[in-house]
Amino acid sequence: MVPLVHGCPWCYVGKARFERALAAFPHRDAVEVVHRSFELDPGRAKDDVQPVLTVLTKKYGMSEAQAQAGEDDLGTRAAAEGLAYRTRGRDHGSTFDMHRLLHLAKEHGRQDELVQRLYRANFAEERSVFNDDERLVGIAVGAGLDEAAVRAVLADPRAYADEVRADEREAAQLGATGVPFFVLDRKYGVSGAQPAEVFERALTQAWGERAPLTPVADGAADACGPDGCAVEPGR
Amino acid sequence: MVPLVHGCPWCYVGKARFERALAAFPHRDAVEVVHRSFELDPGRAKDDVQPVLTVLTKKYGMSEAQAQAGEDDLGTRAAAEGLAYRTRGRDHGSTFDMHRLLHLAKEHGRQDELVQRLYRANFAEERSVFNDDERLVGIAVGAGLDEAAVRAVLADPRAYADEVRADEREAAQLGATGVPFFVLDRKYGVSGAQPAEVFERALTQAWGERAPLTPVADGAADACGPDGCAVEPGR
Repeated sequence: MVPLVHGCPWCYVGKARFERALAAFPHRDAVEVVHRSFELDPGRAKDDVQPVLTVLTKKYGMSEAQAQAGEDDLGTRAAAEGLAYRTRGRDHGSTFDMHRLLHLAKEHGRQDELVQRLYRANFAEERSVFNDDERLVGIAVGAGLDEAAVRAVLADPRAYADEVRADEREAAQLGATGVPFFVLDRKYGVSGAQPAEVFERALTQAWGERAPLTPVADGAADACGPDGCAVEPGR
Repeated sequence: MVPLVHGCPWCYVGKARFERALAAFPHRDAVEVVHRSFELDPGRAKDDVQPVLTVLTKKYGMSEAQAQAGEDDLGTRAAAEGLAYRTRGRDHGSTFDMHRLLHLAKEHGRQDELVQRLYRANFAEERSVFNDDERLVGIAVGAGLDEAAVRAVLADPRAYADEVRADEREAAQLGATGVPFFVLDRKYGVSGAQPAEVFERALTQAWGERAPLTPVADGAADACGPDGCAVEPGR
């Protein structure tokens, strides 16, 4: 089961809701979670870092008071999931390098740990994660990655860039236009930080519909079974 | 796409045939391969190591000459895939520890490398891989795993044992009674070391039938899109 998760506030909250549903799911040990890349602003320059409030007022034409009320609301939703959320002074920038590091982390079985630490750093802590390679190195090493490997990825913008783009193409093909977006068995899609009950329903539904396999080839197979391997000299 | 592969001669040959098909598949970069555990003789004691020819004559009631002809035939099939195969003097034993190490390797992105090295060690080289922890340590470290982590897994028979059993339960649920057994999108099953053309057909068929997702929940989603994040204070 493959959710597409990204560093947006609803992803931070949605991940916690999904995990609550998963923890209550009887077949949770059979569920494999993979995080995929999705950038909300793919062409964004690395050094284009802006305060969240500026972006909110620009995108929605909100007043600063309205935008701040939105952030406060997100803080309430996050708190309901036991998550710290910094409602003032956060900023906003390119997540491309973080996604590239998440692909490195995936290869070393540290992806979920790195997602979690990036979320915490971005949403809960005081310092910015954007355009700050040293901060990213510290976070990635904290998640269990090798420092030299992390620095090599950050130093070469092509490293894992194809993997990020491939995930984003796949998201588009699957019809995901926003995040979080959760894909189960490449069959069901859950858009947004839905309540845990919706994720529970989706997990139960996907599990219940696991169908028997369709065999692709008939006839005698060259295979080994409990009674030994088929060996038929001269066939 | 998830094949179930195991250290049997047809798995060794079948993996090469599958990989030949995959290399020719236009969407190969979108295919993810995961190896799953399957033991042909799950209760086998670690120190129960026997010559392959003894096992073949015992299981099939073959004469030693017939069994040897079978091994020679496997050697020919392996050679056709460019694989070395030692047709004389191989032995046969429990693969439980290797499967446990393959789960460790999976967590570190080294699974395919370790499968490949275990196959080579078992089928192509002169020394036995069974009941020889030092040999397994050497192979696993060669595949990129941390020596201390490998030794810790070998020293504790419970390490990754649940993961091995879970894979085997899943194989049974999917109807796999022998190996190699390839599962594509949890939809198609390919049993045995089929010709590369069969794997090509299976890949093409599974790819062509990737259906649009079914949305699980309707209504407004708490999500972030290209135009920003939904923030609706007081909703």
